[in-house]
Amino acid sequence: MSILITGVAGFIGCNLAGTLLERGGYVFGVDNLCRGSLANLYDVERNPRFSFIEVDMADKTAYRRAFVDFHARDPITEVWHMAANSDIPAGIADASIDLRDTFMTTFNTLELMREFKVPVIAFASSSAIYGDLGKRPLTEDTGPLLPISNYGAMKLASEAAISAAVESGIARAYLFRFPNVIGIPSTHGVILDFVRKLAVTPDNLVVLGDGTQQKGYLHVVELIDAMLFIRDKAPERIAVYNIGPGDDGVTVRFIAEETVRKAAPGASITFGSGNKGWVGDVPQFVYSVDKLRALGYRNQLGSVEAVRLALHQIVEQERR
Amino acid sequence: MSILITGVAGFIGCNLAGTLLERGGYVFGVDNLCRGSLANLYDVERNPRFSFIEVDMADKTAYRRAFVDFHARDPITEVWHMAANSDIPAGIADASIDLRDTFMTTFNTLELMREFKVPVIAFASSSAIYGDLGKRPLTEDTGPLLPISNYGAMKLASEAAISAAVESGIARAYLFRFPNVIGIPSTHGVILDFVRKLAVTPDNLVVLGDGTQQKGYLHVVELIDAMLFIRDKAPERIAVYNIGPGDDGVTVRFIAEETVRKAAPGASITFGSGNKGWVGDVPQFVYSVDKLRALGYRNQLGSVEAVRLALHQIVEQERR
Repeated sequence: MSILITGVAGFIGCNLAGTLLERGGYVFGVDNLCRGSLANLYDVERNPRFSFIEVDMADKTAYRRAFVDFHARDPITEVWHMAANSDIPAGIADASIDLRDTFMTTFNTLELMREFKVPVIAFASSSAIYGDLGKRPLTEDTGPLLPISNYGAMKLASEAAISAAVESGIARAYLFRFPNVIGIPSTHGVILDFVRKLAVTPDNLVVLGDGTQQKGYLHVVELIDAMLFIRDKAPERIAVYNIGPGDDGVTVRFIAEETVRKAAPGASITFGSGNKGWVGDVPQFVYSVDKLRALGYRNQLGSVEAVRLALHQIVEQERR
Repeated sequence: MSILITGVAGFIGCNLAGTLLERGGYVFGVDNLCRGSLANLYDVERNPRFSFIEVDMADKTAYRRAFVDFHARDPITEVWHMAANSDIPAGIADASIDLRDTFMTTFNTLELMREFKVPVIAFASSSAIYGDLGKRPLTEDTGPLLPISNYGAMKLASEAAISAAVESGIARAYLFRFPNVIGIPSTHGVILDFVRKLAVTPDNLVVLGDGTQQKGYLHVVELIDAMLFIRDKAPERIAVYNIGPGDDGVTVRFIAEETVRKAAPGASITFGSGNKGWVGDVPQFVYSVDKLRALGYRNQLGSVEAVRLALHQIVEQERR
């Protein structure tokens, strides 16, 4: 087994690299280091079965050189494609960011997989592909898929390109659709945002929106556990699975209160108005993981425990 | 009203231009003339309210110049985006064709619409976005969407990009999902194929596959009628509608027999094996137009009548 991880220096990629190395085999990694960081690879880089090349995957010629290099060491048997623009608002302001970093990275990965006869792709899709369907439960067979951010649009475009590739050259695909993932190393997201705000103004936390926005939160450790479970068990040639905490989630108010309790006890909290944080944000959704449960997976953390664990880790991270 | 039609020199585009000109207002057209032809614009070009610029829409700078030129004459109020790679097998052999001609034309259209504040887009999507779901009826809320051709994948990617654009800058979108459209001017497809084969060997028609492949066929005149009906009546901000003949379709055997009867009476027919014509072709599907009917639309032609009318027109076309 030789697995290539794209976006390996990012939040999910670096955690995944650690877990895959524990399982044995080579792990190759690429990243353009725009949002990811070499510091995230500090632990895995000491493993002799890990190898990293900095490359812009939207540049097919450069990406191909990395592929050739890894493939010569040990033929790549599987790609875990985690690379994407993770800054959703930036992609709404400038659609070319998600075109390049979220979609063209997928397109070029598929082209190279076909050329080098790599049979399996596992893809970090997103709950953002569903768009804003209100309180309609989001199952894998929900449609129409009308994303409200370019991030969601280019994740859906990537799913579509992968699906077509499975008809012509690629043997199997795993499409993991997941919502808000939390944990460390944290570079963005509501918990880090609150922790950093409180570091500046320890007596008051200003929250965007009225705090009623409710979402499920999935810890990165659980996400990786679930992805590997699906990779091992799912029978479909194109395996589409929602991954989530399996509960109704927690409100922004809950996260604000937990953060204050942990990071700045006694601070007051000021809420804004409206329940939509920013353009492209889906305010509330019911995320079904029934299909994943039917496959036999059992969640270990719910949203509450995931938030508390991540909060603890992020406060530690920020103290370093 | 000033409407820009992309892919105006193609099969659907040129028919649409004629109909929109009858309704009044300016009609601007762009086409890269790769698959479309100036000959298709012979009738509409004589109308002083029609204007055409040859441009590669995948080249944003060149496309922008055309936009500036049209916009200066009369501000564009609506784009009907029909441009795409219509050669599905070519796009499977080389994914970059659909990336460029089916998807990047959409992406650049949206970028220019935002820049020039054009509020409405009508888009020629496709039944190919559904992939091969067997006999499961295809309704607008069917999922997951797992296309089996790059054409279908890049049509779905286009839907996704349009959906996100409606959240940030564009007011309304109409996504028309339709299957096999027939009529004239015909450049490809099963009827033209059969007519041309019989012109070479008038005593025998060789059919790819066993002839049991069954599909609905929609005449281009009816397609345009239905698209304009939806444009006028649909209440949704993103209006997703299947358009089809509203019946179970006809088999390849029926089309072969009708073509022989019309073009070379007495010729024998030789069938191949299997019911899948080529990679990326969906062999059989049940296409629901219940949503369109609920909006009040009534089909005038079924698949049988559409095939007979198109066959008559194509035989005439080939005699010229």
